[in-house]
Amino acid sequence: MPNIDVCYSPELLHLYELKGKAVVAVDILRATSTMVTAFAHGAADIIPVMDLAECRAYAAQGCLTAAERNGIKAAGFDFGNSPFSYMQETIKGRTIAITTTNGTRAIRLSEAADEIVIGSFLNLQVVADYLQELQLDVLVVCAGWKGKFNLEDTLYAGALVERLQNTFSFANDATQASLYLYQIAKEDLLTFLWQSSHVRRLEKLGIHEDIEFCLQYDTYNVLPVWRHDRLVDHLAVITNNEL
Amino acid sequence: MPNIDVCYSPELLHLYELKGKAVVAVDILRATSTMVTAFAHGAADIIPVMDLAECRAYAAQGCLTAAERNGIKAAGFDFGNSPFSYMQETIKGRTIAITTTNGTRAIRLSEAADEIVIGSFLNLQVVADYLQELQLDVLVVCAGWKGKFNLEDTLYAGALVERLQNTFSFANDATQASLYLYQIAKEDLLTFLWQSSHVRRLEKLGIHEDIEFCLQYDTYNVLPVWRHDRLVDHLAVITNNEL
Repeated sequence: MPNIDVCYSPELLHLYELKGKAVVAVDILRATSTMVTAFAHGAADIIPVMDLAECRAYAAQGCLTAAERNGIKAAGFDFGNSPFSYMQETIKGRTIAITTTNGTRAIRLSEAADEIVIGSFLNLQVVADYLQELQLDVLVVCAGWKGKFNLEDTLYAGALVERLQNTFSFANDATQASLYLYQIAKEDLLTFLWQSSHVRRLEKLGIHEDIEFCLQYDTYNVLPVWRHDRLVDHLAVITNNEL
Repeated sequence: MPNIDVCYSPELLHLYELKGKAVVAVDILRATSTMVTAFAHGAADIIPVMDLAECRAYAAQGCLTAAERNGIKAAGFDFGNSPFSYMQETIKGRTIAITTTNGTRAIRLSEAADEIVIGSFLNLQVVADYLQELQLDVLVVCAGWKGKFNLEDTLYAGALVERLQNTFSFANDATQASLYLYQIAKEDLLTFLWQSSHVRRLEKLGIHEDIEFCLQYDTYNVLPVWRHDRLVDHLAVITNNEL
């Protein structure tokens, strides 16, 4: 039986063996929720980059660009980090270069893994099904907040663990703790997270609708995976190959 | 109102400002529980050192020496990491040099803090009272297991947060998460921790009695604090000064 582990911060990733594993990268508020939304609205691929200058340079190559720092859209980019801004026709078939405070870091630091999948509540079951199919050990990599533990990514880890608990063993205490926290929170994620310092920080930015949106389960049938140097929707690729 | 924060691993300590803060270093199974027990049985001071060779060298200076690696007593030392081995007359008035897998690391990496206190369930209220008195921001530094999150140190953090929650604000999500986990676990810490991978690992070493002992509340009236290059019992120092 493969096992499932949870890493609470990209700063702890050096403690984990990634080779032979499937990483689920998660930044619920809002990078990975936003990426899933972008694919659901027809984005062709997404290039997560570490810094603003590199991201801006992609515009010259015909890409759309998106950048967020400290919760706010950075100046001079097409998009920020709100999932709602990606719900439009103009992104269909386009490549989007994106850089965010925490989320892109979690993805890029996981490149040694055999597979990287983008997780969010919006595509929770799709990811769970894919992990069942892969039968690799799983490491959920929480983006956290500037390297520190955060609750919303932990709750996602717990939700995924709950769906996989009968077919995966628990690798470590973080798996167990995430499941316990999710079991307390799941009746009302939003009210629970209202206790969270990061969510309060985001609420001050006036993105209450974004937060509510990112806490919805199984909205999209989308499976972003890392291929070579970018993210593609694995389900769309399969569908296209079948045409 | 000062705040209380929790750091789940020494590997995350670089993300925290330590200056101006009181650190509570905790390694419930078993380093900090053992240190508290040693002071309660009359140890004069404790020198936490990082490696075995340095620790062994203290024997030539007339110190008792203690060493644990991977849960087992290292060869050639007076003591391992079991609190029961310190319950004897021979340690009265002695200096003990000690090195353990996780606990000593948490202490030594916290030296930039204004105050370092050694926490365990055995002296929970004494530490809570002292922090109330200090009125500094508090950071609980969990030793974890080889840098990774563990449940028993997190439960201690939650227990301390519960006792301080009316007089300290919550700095971050880790504070909230620790309190939630403690509130689930507190009716029966031992049964709860039986789910923990680290506790199962230790159970295999046949130290069930150690684990039960380390989960007792408020057994000792002892307050180990860092002074210059070693730990002393702050309460014993006060008593001696008053004589």
